[in-house]
Amino acid sequence: MTDRLSGVLSPVVTPFKNDLSPDADLLIKQCQWLLSQNVGLAVFGTNSEANSLSVDEKIMLLDRLVEAGVDTGRMMPGTGCCALTDTVKLTAHAAKLGCAGTLMLPPFYYKGVSDEGIFASFAEVIERVGDESLRIYLYHIPPIAQVGFSVDLIDRLVKTYPSTIVGIKDSSGDWDNTYSMLERKWDDFRIFVGSESFLLANMQNGGAGCISATANVNPAAIDHLYQTWQSDDADAQQQALDDIRDTVMAYPMIPALKATVAEFSGEEQWRTVRPPLVNLGAEPSNALATSLRDKGFEMPGL
Amino acid sequence: MTDRLSGVLSPVVTPFKNDLSPDADLLIKQCQWLLSQNVGLAVFGTNSEANSLSVDEKIMLLDRLVEAGVDTGRMMPGTGCCALTDTVKLTAHAAKLGCAGTLMLPPFYYKGVSDEGIFASFAEVIERVGDESLRIYLYHIPPIAQVGFSVDLIDRLVKTYPSTIVGIKDSSGDWDNTYSMLERKWDDFRIFVGSESFLLANMQNGGAGCISATANVNPAAIDHLYQTWQSDDADAQQQALDDIRDTVMAYPMIPALKATVAEFSGEEQWRTVRPPLVNLGAEPSNALATSLRDKGFEMPGL
Repeated sequence: MTDRLSGVLSPVVTPFKNDLSPDADLLIKQCQWLLSQNVGLAVFGTNSEANSLSVDEKIMLLDRLVEAGVDTGRMMPGTGCCALTDTVKLTAHAAKLGCAGTLMLPPFYYKGVSDEGIFASFAEVIERVGDESLRIYLYHIPPIAQVGFSVDLIDRLVKTYPSTIVGIKDSSGDWDNTYSMLERKWDDFRIFVGSESFLLANMQNGGAGCISATANVNPAAIDHLYQTWQSDDADAQQQALDDIRDTVMAYPMIPALKATVAEFSGEEQWRTVRPPLVNLGAEPSNALATSLRDKGFEMPGL
Repeated sequence: MTDRLSGVLSPVVTPFKNDLSPDADLLIKQCQWLLSQNVGLAVFGTNSEANSLSVDEKIMLLDRLVEAGVDTGRMMPGTGCCALTDTVKLTAHAAKLGCAGTLMLPPFYYKGVSDEGIFASFAEVIERVGDESLRIYLYHIPPIAQVGFSVDLIDRLVKTYPSTIVGIKDSSGDWDNTYSMLERKWDDFRIFVGSESFLLANMQNGGAGCISATANVNPAAIDHLYQTWQSDDADAQQQALDDIRDTVMAYPMIPALKATVAEFSGEEQWRTVRPPLVNLGAEPSNALATSLRDKGFEMPGL
C-alpha cells in the first residue's frame, strides 16, 4: 500500500475575473469536473499561470478548494517559488491541508546554479516544513524554468529523503531524459511525463502517468489510454491524443487552453489570462474551436 | 530640474543571519557606507539575491532602511516579481516610502512572451499603484531573466507613460544593445549600464551612469570615473576598474562579492548566501582576497 500518486493529472487552468483576481468558484467547478473525468489536480502548475499568482492568492484558492470538499487525496499543487520563504510557506500550507503531494519547481531566477545549491534549497524546504506527511514531486521543466534536475541530483535527493522525494514530472520534452530516469528504478518513485505524447512510452517503461496541459480539455481520453495502455488499440489511442494535442498547441498554449474551456463550457470568463500572457483573439479562438469540432472533439459534462 | 537618478548605484548585497533570515542592521550599515562613497542604493537587485526573498521580507527591509534614516532620494529598490499582485504590492510600498525610483524586472517565469504582454504587465502595475511620484527604471537582464525589453517596447512604454517610465538598466552585457537605446534619445531618459566596464562608453554617449555588482566592493573608484569621465586619465581609470572587476568575476559573482565584503569588513556573517546559491569556500575566498590585496585594493571606512 502506497500513498503515492499515479495516473493522469491536469495542471488546472486558473480562471480570472475581469479585474484579474482569481475566480475561486469557477476553479472549484472546473476541479470537480476534472475529478469526474478521473483526472487529478495539479493546481498551480505552469498552465495554471501559477507564477503569475502571489503566495497569498494560491493559499486562498487552496483553502477554497478544500472548503468546497475537493478531494485533497487527488491534489498535487505546485509550491516551488523563487524565494525559499515563499516555497516553505506555501508547501507547509499544502501539507497541512492534507494534499497528497506537491509539485515543486527549483528556485528559477538564478541561472547556472549548482546541484549542490538546488539540493540545499530542497533540504531547507523539507526541514523547515517539518511535516512527515509531505510528499514532493520534483518539477523538471528546463524549457521554461531554465533550472532543472540532473539524474545525479535526483538520486541524491531520493536517497537523502526517501519518504519525501517520491516522484517527478518531466516536462523536458525529451524522451531520452525521461528514460534515463526510468532506468534508475528508484524504489516506488513516480515518474510522470509532462505531455500525453509520451504517455504510452512512459507506461511501457514503468512510468506513473502524465501531468499534461491538454488534460485540461481532453481528460477522459487521456485517462482512457492510461487505464488501457496494454490494450490492442493503445497505439491508435495515442495517435488520437496526439492529434488533439497538436491542434491545440498550434496556438499559444495557455490562452488556447482557456479559450477551449470557454468555447466548450459557454463560460466566457475563462478567456481571461493575466499579463504577461495575452488572451487568444476571437479569430484564432474560432478557428481552434472549429478545428476541434471537425475532429468530433467535445467536453461532455462541462 | 529633474527628479531622475544618475551616477553610480550598487545592487546592494543582502546579509543573512545563520538562520538565513535577512539581517536588517547589517544591511543598514552597508547602505550607509555605500552612501558615504557617493554610491546610490539599488537594493533588491540580482546581486541582492532579491528573488530569493519574499515580498514581505523586502518590505520589512525597506521599512527598516527608511526608519534608520537612509536617504530614499538615493534609493532604487528592485520591485519586479513574477506575479502581478506581488509587483504591485512592493512597488506601491516603495513609492509610498518616497523611493526616488524602482528598478523593475519584467515578469520572468513565462518565456517567449510578447511585447504586448509585457506592456500590459507594466500598464497594470502603473495603473494599480496609481502614484504620481512613481518612477520606474526598466531592468533589462536577458542572460538571467530571459525575458527583456525590445527598443520598440521601451519606446511604447516611454510614450505612454512619459513621467513614469524614466530609465533603464541594461545588463545585457551587449554594448550594441545599449547604444541602440542611447540613439533613440528619449527625453531625459536615464540609461544605466549594468557593468562599469561600459561606464566610460556610456558617459561618452549620453548615458546616465551604471548600476553594477562591483559597486558593492569598489564604489569610490567607480564613482570617481563617473565624476571625471572627461578627464585625461579616464581610459586608465576604466582599465583599473576592469582589472578589479575581472578579479572578482573569476569567481561565482554573488558569493564572491559577499566574501569580499566579509574579508575587508571583518564581518564574517556576510559570507552567507541563500540557496540555491552556495557560499564561496575558504580556499577560493582567500585566493580572491590575496589577488585583490596584491593589486592594492581596499575598502576604506567599511
